[in-house]
Amino acid sequence: MVEKVVILSTGDELTTGKIADTNAQWLADRCLTLGLDVVAVLVVGDFHDRIAWAWERAFELGDLVVSTGGLGPTSDDLTTEIVARVLGVGLRFDEPSAARMRAMFERMGRVMPENNLRQAQFPDPAVILENPLGTAPGYRVSCEREVPAPGGAGRLRLPRHLVVMPGVPREMKPMFDERVAPWIRELRGSDQVIAVRTFQTFGMSESALDEAVNAVIRPEEARVGFRASFPMISVKLLVRDAPGRADARLEELSARLRCALGAVIFGEGDVSMEAATGAALRARGATLAVAESCSGGLVGHRVTEVPGCSAYFLADYVTYSNGAKKDVLGVRPETLAEFGAVSEETVREMAEGARRRSGASVAVATSGVAGPDGGTEKTPVGTVCFALSADGLLVSRRHQLWGTRDWVKLLTSQLALDWVRRWALGLPVVESGFRR
Amino acid sequence: MVEKVVILSTGDELTTGKIADTNAQWLADRCLTLGLDVVAVLVVGDFHDRIAWAWERAFELGDLVVSTGGLGPTSDDLTTEIVARVLGVGLRFDEPSAARMRAMFERMGRVMPENNLRQAQFPDPAVILENPLGTAPGYRVSCEREVPAPGGAGRLRLPRHLVVMPGVPREMKPMFDERVAPWIRELRGSDQVIAVRTFQTFGMSESALDEAVNAVIRPEEARVGFRASFPMISVKLLVRDAPGRADARLEELSARLRCALGAVIFGEGDVSMEAATGAALRARGATLAVAESCSGGLVGHRVTEVPGCSAYFLADYVTYSNGAKKDVLGVRPETLAEFGAVSEETVREMAEGARRRSGASVAVATSGVAGPDGGTEKTPVGTVCFALSADGLLVSRRHQLWGTRDWVKLLTSQLALDWVRRWALGLPVVESGFRR
Repeated sequence: MVEKVVILSTGDELTTGKIADTNAQWLADRCLTLGLDVVAVLVVGDFHDRIAWAWERAFELGDLVVSTGGLGPTSDDLTTEIVARVLGVGLRFDEPSAARMRAMFERMGRVMPENNLRQAQFPDPAVILENPLGTAPGYRVSCEREVPAPGGAGRLRLPRHLVVMPGVPREMKPMFDERVAPWIRELRGSDQVIAVRTFQTFGMSESALDEAVNAVIRPEEARVGFRASFPMISVKLLVRDAPGRADARLEELSARLRCALGAVIFGEGDVSMEAATGAALRARGATLAVAESCSGGLVGHRVTEVPGCSAYFLADYVTYSNGAKKDVLGVRPETLAEFGAVSEETVREMAEGARRRSGASVAVATSGVAGPDGGTEKTPVGTVCFALSADGLLVSRRHQLWGTRDWVKLLTSQLALDWVRRWALGLPVVESGFRR
Repeated sequence: MVEKVVILSTGDELTTGKIADTNAQWLADRCLTLGLDVVAVLVVGDFHDRIAWAWERAFELGDLVVSTGGLGPTSDDLTTEIVARVLGVGLRFDEPSAARMRAMFERMGRVMPENNLRQAQFPDPAVILENPLGTAPGYRVSCEREVPAPGGAGRLRLPRHLVVMPGVPREMKPMFDERVAPWIRELRGSDQVIAVRTFQTFGMSESALDEAVNAVIRPEEARVGFRASFPMISVKLLVRDAPGRADARLEELSARLRCALGAVIFGEGDVSMEAATGAALRARGATLAVAESCSGGLVGHRVTEVPGCSAYFLADYVTYSNGAKKDVLGVRPETLAEFGAVSEETVREMAEGARRRSGASVAVATSGVAGPDGGTEKTPVGTVCFALSADGLLVSRRHQLWGTRDWVKLLTSQLALDWVRRWALGLPVVESGFRR
């Protein structure tokens, strides 16, 4: 039975603050999904004694040790050598791995340096995990270890498993998903599997989401996880059940959740708001123009993060100055004079001007005070006005947002994208909002 | 003598993958600057036995333990209770801390829940570190501990120091800089101090930078650290010397580095390219307009990340479709027909159109193929053309960039901003570039 995991991250770049240990975060999330309990994350630099210390401790705490880093070709890459020593086994040279490395270098038109051959050495009982994206293969080992008995009374021989993977995220992640996760599922036995689905939401606070989810899903039916990454919150459902039943139960719970949250869910799986908005525009066969002031180009930037957006995105008029609002979008001088740049009246004219000018099916406009300066009593920092113009439709709303300049911009772009998404799906538009 | 540090991060959000341990990265970077060696980072969830295990191990490995997290008001915040037990001391209630908490709640117009009083308890010998930004104060303790002797021969009593801080980054960081770092400097003794300066660069590869730095600074003169965060690379100089001498030597080495790298350095300290560009425009009293195609609004977004940018930024014309390029910027249909949207001819007209339309002193324009689709043999994915128009100046260049869609966009925006910065500083513009 595998249940307790220790994640071991090796590399000077982690202990000198060059990079954050995002591998550990990613692996911890995957372990949760596999039903494993991450007991500890241990991070050490490229030193013999420290890595050896970490491996000894990891075996005391976990049934399974998942290690990343220290598999490079240079002399400060020590993981394999130390794993072999800690396990008390020798190193074995693997000719097929060496051949794959040579072929990879040849494809790049380069001669393989001799020190790369270190990456074809493995602790003797290792099962090699091929790495199609880099030269360093990973490996896994199952063995027995003598470890201190729980409670400290003597020592016991217990089964232990370990996985060693390269530290480069783009090599490590597919290796884990394709080669390690299935093996862990097997180790954990097949009487229970975990089915997972993630819902991306915008527009409800975490506590309101919690309440809404609790109203339709009982704690014993699924494990529910929330993860806020401003300005969106993802809701993850985990169902543990017999194979064949878990997926069906997850589907049933998902249907309840979709019904309870409605338009607040903008996507399922790894999907961004801009991708959801783009998909909705495509499905409707519509084209989009944007007019921005305080968000400064962020709406356009996010729209164009989606490959293929030229099918629906025509233009973004970032009219930061009042002069540009008049010149490019035809906002009337009287409107600016009477109501100011941050007003529903002005954004309505901006949205109409953008749609007229571009010929797009729909245009969304924003104007506000991102701060930290520029606020007044009537229009404090965080005030942002939104408008959407489409055939036979012109709506607007004033929102009081909050936070630092970058938060106000980000939340502004999120609301603007959500308005467009809702319009494209035929949903009510101005109801989109955000509660802390 | 304090030299070896263990960073201890506590919280279920770290062992379930909700967030990455960015506190540990930030602290590791600060420790490097203080001349400390981070032996290990230990991360555990909110469990009694795991936190106690981590503290015991941390004391074995480090002279100093820096801990974050587990100081909240709820029952799963266990750090203080466990620290007291591991140290073998009692808890002391601190009335002044409780009074500060009550006052903080009053200012927010709320009544303090009783369980917040847990945050006014400290291990008996602790020196309290006030927290002006939150309810949980930090604290530090110096003591002696019996630890296994190096080499494993028996046990020794050795001085040990610990710091406990809240896990919220915006509370932890100023607490460390204002209250902890000066104390660590004192512990380390005053015969040597470390002077640090960071240079932000764009336009040279890490290996080229390394070579250029090595040509003017000998290894014994300073420790040099590189940190690439695409598309910029920061170069950090650390000089260790007697107080009074370190700053002067750093200044001398900085002068050599500025001379060797020239315009490749766009700023010193924590400065972004967009802030450097904005400062240069302000200094010249110039105004800016932008015309974008493939970068989709990212240039404008970055320009407007800088507070007060309305002093120089007028407008960004994101003309994604050819229709918008003609309509808004006056790009001639013949130019588009003959040379295509991704050509130096077209971006020159875009830049001129943006400057004419906005009345800005300078305008920069981009047009390219961000990918993954849309490339042709003549204009492959990653081709981006740039132009800059100012009074009496019109320059353009075609670049072959690389990487995924978001990288091409990011690098495009970086080059565009660097052109404007160079123009505002009176430096050659088109020489800006990027080598892998």
